[in-house]
Amino acid sequence: MPETKQFIEQNKEDFLKELSDFLSIPSVSTAPEHVGDVAKCAEWVSDNLQAIGLKNVEIFKTAGHPIVYGEWLEAGENAPTVLFYGHYDVQPTDPIELWTNPPFEPTIRDGKIFARGAVDDKGQVFLQMKALQSLFKNNAGKLPVNVKLLIEGEEEIGSINLEGFLKEYAEKLKCDTVLVSDTAMYRDGQPSLVYGLRGLCYVEVSVTGPNRDLHSGSFGGTLENPLNALCSIIDSLKDRYGRISVNGFYENVLDLTPQEKEEFAGLNFDEKGYLEELQIPMTYGESGFSTLERVWARPTLDVNGIWGGFTGSGAKTVLPSKAQAKISMRLVPNQTADEIAKKVEAYIKSIAPPTVKVEVEFLHGADPVLTPMDTPGMKAAQRALKKAFGVDSVFTREGGSIPIVLLFDRILKAPTVLMGFGLHSENTHSPDEHFNLHNLFKGIEATAYFYEEMANEKK
Amino acid sequence: MPETKQFIEQNKEDFLKELSDFLSIPSVSTAPEHVGDVAKCAEWVSDNLQAIGLKNVEIFKTAGHPIVYGEWLEAGENAPTVLFYGHYDVQPTDPIELWTNPPFEPTIRDGKIFARGAVDDKGQVFLQMKALQSLFKNNAGKLPVNVKLLIEGEEEIGSINLEGFLKEYAEKLKCDTVLVSDTAMYRDGQPSLVYGLRGLCYVEVSVTGPNRDLHSGSFGGTLENPLNALCSIIDSLKDRYGRISVNGFYENVLDLTPQEKEEFAGLNFDEKGYLEELQIPMTYGESGFSTLERVWARPTLDVNGIWGGFTGSGAKTVLPSKAQAKISMRLVPNQTADEIAKKVEAYIKSIAPPTVKVEVEFLHGADPVLTPMDTPGMKAAQRALKKAFGVDSVFTREGGSIPIVLLFDRILKAPTVLMGFGLHSENTHSPDEHFNLHNLFKGIEATAYFYEEMANEKK
Repeated sequence: MPETKQFIEQNKEDFLKELSDFLSIPSVSTAPEHVGDVAKCAEWVSDNLQAIGLKNVEIFKTAGHPIVYGEWLEAGENAPTVLFYGHYDVQPTDPIELWTNPPFEPTIRDGKIFARGAVDDKGQVFLQMKALQSLFKNNAGKLPVNVKLLIEGEEEIGSINLEGFLKEYAEKLKCDTVLVSDTAMYRDGQPSLVYGLRGLCYVEVSVTGPNRDLHSGSFGGTLENPLNALCSIIDSLKDRYGRISVNGFYENVLDLTPQEKEEFAGLNFDEKGYLEELQIPMTYGESGFSTLERVWARPTLDVNGIWGGFTGSGAKTVLPSKAQAKISMRLVPNQTADEIAKKVEAYIKSIAPPTVKVEVEFLHGADPVLTPMDTPGMKAAQRALKKAFGVDSVFTREGGSIPIVLLFDRILKAPTVLMGFGLHSENTHSPDEHFNLHNLFKGIEATAYFYEEMANEKK
Repeated sequence: MPETKQFIEQNKEDFLKELSDFLSIPSVSTAPEHVGDVAKCAEWVSDNLQAIGLKNVEIFKTAGHPIVYGEWLEAGENAPTVLFYGHYDVQPTDPIELWTNPPFEPTIRDGKIFARGAVDDKGQVFLQMKALQSLFKNNAGKLPVNVKLLIEGEEEIGSINLEGFLKEYAEKLKCDTVLVSDTAMYRDGQPSLVYGLRGLCYVEVSVTGPNRDLHSGSFGGTLENPLNALCSIIDSLKDRYGRISVNGFYENVLDLTPQEKEEFAGLNFDEKGYLEELQIPMTYGESGFSTLERVWARPTLDVNGIWGGFTGSGAKTVLPSKAQAKISMRLVPNQTADEIAKKVEAYIKSIAPPTVKVEVEFLHGADPVLTPMDTPGMKAAQRALKKAFGVDSVFTREGGSIPIVLLFDRILKAPTVLMGFGLHSENTHSPDEHFNLHNLFKGIEATAYFYEEMANEKK
């Protein structure tokens, strides 16, 4: 039995006790009443990094919640350096009444640990620590590569102080590979590496008609109704094949390679289960693509909110002065948020009827990410996952954005390995969040192997 | 000088004092704190009807505010009977801070009387009383025709108890013509008779997609977004010529006669002033019709309200479970609310995408009205207006609905003469409501002539 496996077997009970301690701290970053708990949780992380053997462990204050840092750099200048990123803060617990057990009283049932943060991301930060502890123990206090750990307390509120920190300490944080364990496996038993993330371009559209709300009887039929005009504009943004009509929208879209298409198809996406889970009669999207292709590798356009006129109960006959909508596009490589914002604004302006005033405001953006699959980190991760799980890992993408990956790419110039051990069914951000203990232990194993395998990769 | 004119000249001061008394009573029918004032106002009306010579004056209790009734039936069975309808209740005064003078402290400025209810409808009820008073005085206590007066206190809250009252007292209220003074003249100096009112069909459309709000990154692109679907449905309700696409929608629409078209055109609608007043770049509506034709005689379809998803500030990437809209159609003769509700529901269901659940709920309806222009009442009113104002009156329509006219038609089987003396610029329902005193006095005159002219019409 490999040493790491043995180490886990011998210490399972202690690990679960320790993890329970960690999960008991209500480190809800968005809640002012939990500021003290978040700070306490940073202390807990810092104490544990020191206990397992990391050096120069430090708690960095920020304008918000603290960042915990630790390192072990004795593998020498010729060995690669891995920067692990994770977060110790958690989502709020609402609706609290839907939890089977209190969210900060960790409970083990059916081989799973239930608590807020169990899988996102405290459980995955914890398995990282245990992997490093195992390596220290089995290698006479040494690690196979240089390791830096950056564990923040503001991921659930948009990592608002992380960019400044990365810029200020870019030299200190220099690394060859970033490792993140904050994603899910494609399905249970199927280790996965995420190599693509979609970006985002979020705009608000305002349509203004007459200078005041009008009576729909006295005025109706004689002038453009901003609500009708807005609906018409929105309907013109896509054609009947689900393709976005904005001029040049697909210009920079990187097509999937035949190999990627084949690999996605090989994942045998459970279409029936998807329909049942969401209770929809059918899937729908851009013609010519499968569901996985649509959500992982094709851009979208969705109305996220719309409002205007009378929305109370009953029948008020108003012809409103103004109509508004929030519209966002998910982007894929090599689109950029700035490029798409400009194209969308130009297109909407070009189709805006001359009867009303139409404004487009850019609210928020994030560029998409595609990590090469053949970096040293990716190759080491593939071997490590195979060793731990006994099956080949698969490359997957995510439909959402993980903005920190872009930051690492831009500021630290290092590629990221997204090697997560969660499952999509583990209620992240919802009541009864949990983490499968089997995957927790496999995660410790795989992570330890990852560092060993990194030592075999060229720097 | 005709007797009525003389009577007015001699009593102007007293009339204005009396009207001020009437306007001082805050008979706001929607406000629970004004229940006592509404009752007091009914007493005021009742006292005045008795004072000027009406018989069997009575205050009828209803489940809400009282109805005041009075009559003079001594013109004999062979003379026509006119039922005058008006209301003594008023709109609330909000926003109170925009009034130049307190709304229940009537003030005369620039030849206008300012107060809540000045023109809608207390001032016009008052001119009715003064016209009858003049006739009584100048004809030795007699009127030229039989007269019944029905003055209610719930018009501003939808005349909720009027239908029951009309049904219960249909025999007592029997008449040949109904006279209503609660409308506006086409423009100052241009006496007008309203002969057409639009109806209404008001529905709520709900589009339901997945069973919960979803993350637009994790799911976007794979399923129909109910907000996009709703916008698409709404956009499909009209074509690019502004025509409503609902099957059979125009089937029962009565086209304007060449004569009506000519008369509308003759009114020289002030298109430029309209654009300036509403601050819109251009008018817009059904192709092939003028602005007056569109608002008076063509049906419409307007979104009155729409809502769904995230409508706060900032950017939330939600793909909502549900989207809703309130949509109403103004109807013209001979469409009916029931017919259109059925057609709209069938059409929306027929274009609803198979990817979502679409529901249509009928909320409210009113049928359109068209009064023949050659009834005895209309002919008498034309002659009376010419005599009072010195110019021919014009026939106009209104874009909104006046539901009581339908009740009179259905329950009393009597056609209505809508002879009003207000102006569109007199801030009905708004701060600084007022009534032009010149039109108040002309209204007394015209109304007195109307009763005299009615005596010349066949019963």
